[in-house]
Amino acid sequence: MKIATVTYNRESHVALVDTENNRVLLLKSAAEASGQTERVPSTVIDAIEMGSAFLDMARQLQEWADSQENNAEFYVNQNDVTFESPIVRPRKNIFCVGKNYADHAIEMGSAADIPEHIMLFTKAPTTVIGDGASIPAHADVTSELDYEGELAVVIGRTGRGIQKEDALDYIFGYTILNDVTARDMQARHKQFFLGKSLDGTCPIGPYIVEKSLIPNPNELNIRTSVNGEVRQDSNTKHFIFPIEEIISTVSKGMTLEPGDIIATGTPAGVGKGLKPPKFLKAGDVIEITIEGLGKLVNEVQ
Amino acid sequence: MKIATVTYNRESHVALVDTENNRVLLLKSAAEASGQTERVPSTVIDAIEMGSAFLDMARQLQEWADSQENNAEFYVNQNDVTFESPIVRPRKNIFCVGKNYADHAIEMGSAADIPEHIMLFTKAPTTVIGDGASIPAHADVTSELDYEGELAVVIGRTGRGIQKEDALDYIFGYTILNDVTARDMQARHKQFFLGKSLDGTCPIGPYIVEKSLIPNPNELNIRTSVNGEVRQDSNTKHFIFPIEEIISTVSKGMTLEPGDIIATGTPAGVGKGLKPPKFLKAGDVIEITIEGLGKLVNEVQ
Repeated sequence: MKIATVTYNRESHVALVDTENNRVLLLKSAAEASGQTERVPSTVIDAIEMGSAFLDMARQLQEWADSQENNAEFYVNQNDVTFESPIVRPRKNIFCVGKNYADHAIEMGSAADIPEHIMLFTKAPTTVIGDGASIPAHADVTSELDYEGELAVVIGRTGRGIQKEDALDYIFGYTILNDVTARDMQARHKQFFLGKSLDGTCPIGPYIVEKSLIPNPNELNIRTSVNGEVRQDSNTKHFIFPIEEIISTVSKGMTLEPGDIIATGTPAGVGKGLKPPKFLKAGDVIEITIEGLGKLVNEVQ
Repeated sequence: MKIATVTYNRESHVALVDTENNRVLLLKSAAEASGQTERVPSTVIDAIEMGSAFLDMARQLQEWADSQENNAEFYVNQNDVTFESPIVRPRKNIFCVGKNYADHAIEMGSAADIPEHIMLFTKAPTTVIGDGASIPAHADVTSELDYEGELAVVIGRTGRGIQKEDALDYIFGYTILNDVTARDMQARHKQFFLGKSLDGTCPIGPYIVEKSLIPNPNELNIRTSVNGEVRQDSNTKHFIFPIEEIISTVSKGMTLEPGDIIATGTPAGVGKGLKPPKFLKAGDVIEITIEGLGKLVNEVQ
């Protein structure tokens, strides 16, 4: 199941994405049309908190919708909606793992930069935008804006002290995240947070793929292109710290909660790593594709 | 005005603290008793978002309450309530300035550690606890738990690109914050976030003092003691980056929002800076006093 937040006729909807038929199912509209009285969650975080009750409800609504001949009320062409970030406003900062691919650690410095322990920083919730939205160039505060294509994990259950072997049970699903970074600010302020938290520098989406559809998140092709030129082309099998270890380490003394988003790091090929470096400028279009998760596309403005 | 969140008879209340008479005014209860129909905010973040309308309402309720002979319904002895963090659950991570007093930067390393630019990191919302609550020792994940007494600023208005000369206008008020830190994790994971985000390691309170009561936040005595022994004794006039500069720098490309909390850094005298270092252990009681803001007391458990 592919779960999105879309705006249709100026209203926000939790929707299921039918990528084969290029359409989305507006769950609330389907529930109304079918006469279902059970409440459909109004945000994806609410849906995640409902857990399997939501997945069951969504599946039933989809089956009912597919059986209807007149479905224009609830099945809408993908081009007629705006994709928001699937989690429009996270309830805390985005967790981000730094330097989780050896080749990226090396391009940012040298082999000495390959971390022995997980590096974790955050991005403010005010950075979050959806697929298709513009990334502000922030030319007044940075001249080194850079992309970072990443696999993001969405937590589904509350947990602390999660063991590696149980870690995948705490995941709701996966999505694509662009950890857009102001390299000059990142270097100047030492701690990464400020250079990672300019408004609109965290595109997420287009949708969350429920975990049952991704048998092994530690082996997914990931590719980033800028204006059609492939810049990052790797696979999550090159993670230094696989997802189970990230969840286990992060949750050692800190409670993870439904709707938490963990970006798992970016492979080699960022603009700063090129010789000479190539930073983002207005008009640049960044496309990130991850196997099974679709494509996240944003233009710098 | 001193604004708190307190639990009384298992119910959460936005309250005004009358420190002279050792009592708190439960605003919702006063509104009910006075027959006021206007809605009293149910959380301090809601109150902050109401802005001056909240301050006016609170002032009127207080005047009415003070004029009543029978006030037991809404004026409650301070000892009969539990203080929560004034903002029980922040809507994003706490912003924290690192090394904002030269003497602390030096005790953590050397003069080379005095930052030229503001260092900013965050603490997860799951760290937040109130005055009087226990700080978990987290002995399974750290053997170097340490205190950091800090002045915290609570933002009152949405803003980006805030100029230094306007910065204080964006503040709602001030409170005390203990940026409890696992030093071993802070060092091991390079970026500070993980070692700063163990559950229950961000006591805040006991209340927010509305900014009109604090003429100059850049000149307040700040003192931290552990089991009665004074460890930190400084004044915010020693800030490397005063509050106006912090707000201006942080908001350059990132929108600040009502209810955002910015911890302004800690002076010399943390446990790690002592020779030999003295870390926190179960039973230790940490008291932080800031001029005009009361006292924040928490025990390690």
